[in-house]
Amino acid sequence: MITENIIGKKTSALGDKTTVAYNPKTNDQLEGTFCVATPEEVTQAVSIANTAWPQFKRLTGIQRAEFLEAIADEIEDLGDDLVERVMLESGLPAGRVKGERGRTCGQLRLFAQVLREGSWVNAVIDTGDADRKPIPKPDIRKMVSSIGPVVIFTASNFPLAFSTAGGDTASALAAGCPVIVKAHESHLGTNALVSQAIQKAAIKTNMPDGVFSSLVGSGYSLGEQLVQHPLIKGVAFTGSHRGGVALFNLANDRDEPIPVFAEMGSVNPIFMTPEYIQAHSQELAVGIAGSVNLGAGQFCTNPGLLITIENSQTNKFINHLVEAFADLKASSMLNTSIRNNYLSGRKRAKFTTGVHTEFESLPDDNYSAPPAIYSTNANVFFNNPFLHNEIFGPTSILIKCKSIAEMVEVTNNLKGQLTGSIFMEPNAQDQYKILANTLEERVGRLIYNGFPTGVEVGYAMQHGGPYPATTDSRYTSVGTDAIYRFVRPIAFQNCPAAFLPEELKNENPRGILRKVNGVITKDNS
Amino acid sequence: MITENIIGKKTSALGDKTTVAYNPKTNDQLEGTFCVATPEEVTQAVSIANTAWPQFKRLTGIQRAEFLEAIADEIEDLGDDLVERVMLESGLPAGRVKGERGRTCGQLRLFAQVLREGSWVNAVIDTGDADRKPIPKPDIRKMVSSIGPVVIFTASNFPLAFSTAGGDTASALAAGCPVIVKAHESHLGTNALVSQAIQKAAIKTNMPDGVFSSLVGSGYSLGEQLVQHPLIKGVAFTGSHRGGVALFNLANDRDEPIPVFAEMGSVNPIFMTPEYIQAHSQELAVGIAGSVNLGAGQFCTNPGLLITIENSQTNKFINHLVEAFADLKASSMLNTSIRNNYLSGRKRAKFTTGVHTEFESLPDDNYSAPPAIYSTNANVFFNNPFLHNEIFGPTSILIKCKSIAEMVEVTNNLKGQLTGSIFMEPNAQDQYKILANTLEERVGRLIYNGFPTGVEVGYAMQHGGPYPATTDSRYTSVGTDAIYRFVRPIAFQNCPAAFLPEELKNENPRGILRKVNGVITKDNS
Repeated sequence: MITENIIGKKTSALGDKTTVAYNPKTNDQLEGTFCVATPEEVTQAVSIANTAWPQFKRLTGIQRAEFLEAIADEIEDLGDDLVERVMLESGLPAGRVKGERGRTCGQLRLFAQVLREGSWVNAVIDTGDADRKPIPKPDIRKMVSSIGPVVIFTASNFPLAFSTAGGDTASALAAGCPVIVKAHESHLGTNALVSQAIQKAAIKTNMPDGVFSSLVGSGYSLGEQLVQHPLIKGVAFTGSHRGGVALFNLANDRDEPIPVFAEMGSVNPIFMTPEYIQAHSQELAVGIAGSVNLGAGQFCTNPGLLITIENSQTNKFINHLVEAFADLKASSMLNTSIRNNYLSGRKRAKFTTGVHTEFESLPDDNYSAPPAIYSTNANVFFNNPFLHNEIFGPTSILIKCKSIAEMVEVTNNLKGQLTGSIFMEPNAQDQYKILANTLEERVGRLIYNGFPTGVEVGYAMQHGGPYPATTDSRYTSVGTDAIYRFVRPIAFQNCPAAFLPEELKNENPRGILRKVNGVITKDNS
Repeated sequence: MITENIIGKKTSALGDKTTVAYNPKTNDQLEGTFCVATPEEVTQAVSIANTAWPQFKRLTGIQRAEFLEAIADEIEDLGDDLVERVMLESGLPAGRVKGERGRTCGQLRLFAQVLREGSWVNAVIDTGDADRKPIPKPDIRKMVSSIGPVVIFTASNFPLAFSTAGGDTASALAAGCPVIVKAHESHLGTNALVSQAIQKAAIKTNMPDGVFSSLVGSGYSLGEQLVQHPLIKGVAFTGSHRGGVALFNLANDRDEPIPVFAEMGSVNPIFMTPEYIQAHSQELAVGIAGSVNLGAGQFCTNPGLLITIENSQTNKFINHLVEAFADLKASSMLNTSIRNNYLSGRKRAKFTTGVHTEFESLPDDNYSAPPAIYSTNANVFFNNPFLHNEIFGPTSILIKCKSIAEMVEVTNNLKGQLTGSIFMEPNAQDQYKILANTLEERVGRLIYNGFPTGVEVGYAMQHGGPYPATTDSRYTSVGTDAIYRFVRPIAFQNCPAAFLPEELKNENPRGILRKVNGVITKDNS
C-alpha cells in the first residue's frame, strides 16, 4: 500500500506532515503513515488536471468507458486486501463491504454503458434555412460538455460507493472532468488502495496524465485550498451540514463562483397511516427497526422521524416497535467522533421537554451505536428546531399527530429532505392525497409502502432533495443522471463539419438519439 | 392604463409612494403615476403565488398552454397602444418594437407547443422486479416539476421580449411556477399594459388566483424584499454585473439558498482570421459595424472585442471598418443613465494608455449613442482589466495580435462570455482548431462566420455562458430549454397509479416520449 499522494501518473511526498488511520472498534492505529499534501502538491494536481482536461473531454465516450471499466477491474483485482482494509478502517462487516464493492464497480460499469450508448450528451440540432425571411435561419447544434477539473470530497459512511471511486468520481470522469479526490481521514488505506487502482487503470487505458489525483489532508486546509483554486470548476461532497455549507459559501465567494453538490443529511420522515398500522403493525415495526439500524443508522436515507396519528392502534404499534428495537444488535460506528456526536445527539433529543423515551439501549462497548426510539407530539416538534435535524445514527423520533391535517402541518414544517415515505392501505388512500402532495414539495424521492434506505442505482433514481438535504435539488448524486452535475451545454452555430463534435455531425456517426428540429430521432440531420 | 400594482386577479395601491417613467429622447415625464408596492403588497403577492402553486403546477400541460396562448393573444390585442408606449419609454423605433412583440408572442406560443407535446418533463421509468435477489427491485419513476413561486427582474434592453411577458416569464409559467414580476423602472407603462394582458389571460383561462403579479418598485428595496422572501424559490434577472451579483449574494445568504439565473453582460469577442479578412474585408467591416450598432449597441450579444492578426491586410480592414462606422446612424439609448455610462465607459477605454482611437462619432443630441472603434495590442489588453468588461453601447475594441498563438492567449484571458465568433475561410481552417477549442471553454455559443447579435428562439439555442456572463452556465434563458431553470426532478417509488402524475402512468395517457428501463419510447411501461 502506498502512503504518498497520487498526482496523475506519479506519487508525491513533498511535505513533512503525516497522518494515520485508526480502527474504530479498538482505536488502534492502523498500518500506514500517510503524507499530507503540501500547497505545492495541490497546485501540481490541479495544474495537470487542467492540462489533461481539453484532451480528456474530447476522448470518445468509448475511450472513457474503457477507463471506467478498467477501474472496476482493478478494484476487483485488489481482492481481499481491499475488503480487509475497509473492514479495519470502517468497522463494517465483510458482507456489507463486499456488497458495497459490487455497487461501486457496478456504478463504474453503468456509467461506461451510458458512455458507450452515447445519447446522454443531449444532442439538439436545429438545421438552418437560408431562405427564411426576413433573415436566414442559422444552423445551431448543442450538446453538453464537461465543466473542467472537479474536487470530490469522500464520504465517511460509504468508504467505497461514495468515496474515492464512488458515484461522484465515476460520474465526473464519465462526464469528462478530471477528478481530484480529497481522501477521507478515516479511510486513508482504503483510499490509497483504490487510488492506486484508478491510477493503474488510467495508465493502462492511456488516459492523459492528470485525469485523477488523490490528496491526503489534515483538518480543513486541503479542502479549502482545492475549492478556492481558480482552475477547479465544481465540487461534490457528502457529509455534515456544517461541512457542506462551509464549502458552498467558499465556492460562492470565489471570483468565479462554482457549483457545489453537497449532500448534507436528512431525517427522511416516514408517515404511517392508521389503516396501515392496523393491518401490518408488527411487520411495519420490524421493517422500521431494520431500516433505522441499517449500517448503524449511518445511511443518508436513515429514517429519523416517524409520524403517526394517535389512537389505540398507535400504542399497540409502539409496543411492537419497542420489541423490534429490543431485538436489534448494535453495530460499530464509523469513527469515534461520529459515535460521540450520536450519543450526545440522542441525549439532547431525550431530554427535550415533552419527549418520551420509548426504547433506548445503552452502550455496552466503546464503538457501537445503541438504537433508540423517542416519542413526542406535533406541538413539541414545532417548537423544538433541534428535533428537525438529523441525529446521525440508529435513533428515530415518533410524532403522534391528532389528525391527518396535523400530519400535513408537520410536513409543512419539515426542511428539505432526500426522501419521504408514506405507508397506506390501497383501499384507504384517497384521504392522504393532500399529505402526499405536500410531502412531494419537501423531498427528492417519495416512497410508498417502503423504507428509504436502499438507494437503487438506475435511470430514474433521484438522490437529492430541497435544501438543506442538498445544496442543489436539481441534480442527483446517485443513478445515471448524476453525470449532469458535471457538464454544461454549448451551442455551435454554422459550425464547419470538421469542427463539430462527432455527436453533432449530420451523418450521426455515433448513432445516438438526438433532437433534430424538435423531433427525437437517430436519423441524419 | 392602470397605475396600480397587479396582485393576482386584483389591483392594489396601498402605499403613498409613486414613480413615473420618462421619454429617453426628450426627458419628458410620460403619462401615468405608478404606485410603488408596499411590503404588505409584497407579502400578499408572494402569499397568493404560493397558494396558487400546488394547483397551478398540477394543471395539465394543455391548460397551461392555453394560458400562455391567451397571453400572446391579449398582447396582440393591445395593438398600437402597446407599440406606442414601448416606443415612448424605450426610444426604440416602431419596426423593432413590432418585431420584438412578434418574438414575445412567438416565445409564449412556442412554450405552449412544448407543453402540448408534453415530453419536456423528462419522464424516466425503471420498472420493478419482485423476484430480484437479494432484494426486490422497486418501481421508480421520475419527472421534473416546478420549484415554486419565482421572481422575474425585467431587462432594460428588451422591453417586451426580456420583460413582463418575456422569455423568463413564459418559461417559468410553462414550468408551473407562479411569477412575480418586478417592473422595470424605465418601462412602467409597458409593464402595466402587458401585466394587465397577462391578468386578463389568467382570468379567461381560469388559472388559480396568484399565478401572476406585477409590482412596481423604487430603488433596490422591492427586489431585495422579493429575493429574501422565504416562499420565493427562484430568481431570473437580465442586467448589470453589479445587479446580478447583488441578487446572487442575497439568494445565497438566505436560510434556504435559491437559484439565481442572472445574465450580466458579455463582450462577445469576434476573432477574424487573416484569410477571411483578405477575402471579405469590406463585407466583414460592414457586417461588424451593423452588429455593433444594432439597437444602439444594447444587445447582450453585442460584439465588444474584435481580434485580428496584425498585417497589411488588417490596416486595410481597419480603413473599411472606419468607413462602415462613419456610415452608421446613432440611435437613442434606453435611458439617460445608460447613455451616461456609455459615454464615460468609452472615454475610459479611449484614454487607456496604448489604446488608439480608430473612429469616434460625437454626441449630437442628448439621447443618442454615437458609435466608436478603438484599437490596441494584446499586451495592453492583458494589462488593463477594464478593457475586459462590457461597455454597454455601440463601441468595440480591436486587438491586433502578433500570431495565432497570441489570439489563443487572448482567449485564455477572456472572462466567461455568452458568445464567441470566429470568421475563417473553409480552405484555411485547420490552423484555428486550437483557437476554436479554447474559445469553446469560454462561451455558451460558438459562432462561425456570423455575428453574435440575433439570438434564435429554438430547441438548440444556448443563451448563457460561463461566469460572469451568467451566474449559471448550465442553463439557457432563450429557447425551449429555458424551462429547465424552473424545475427539479422528483422520483416516485412504488407509487399507486392513482397518485402518479399522468406523465408517469403505465399506459402513457399523454403519449409522450419517456425513458423506460433505459430506452426512449412512447410505449406503455
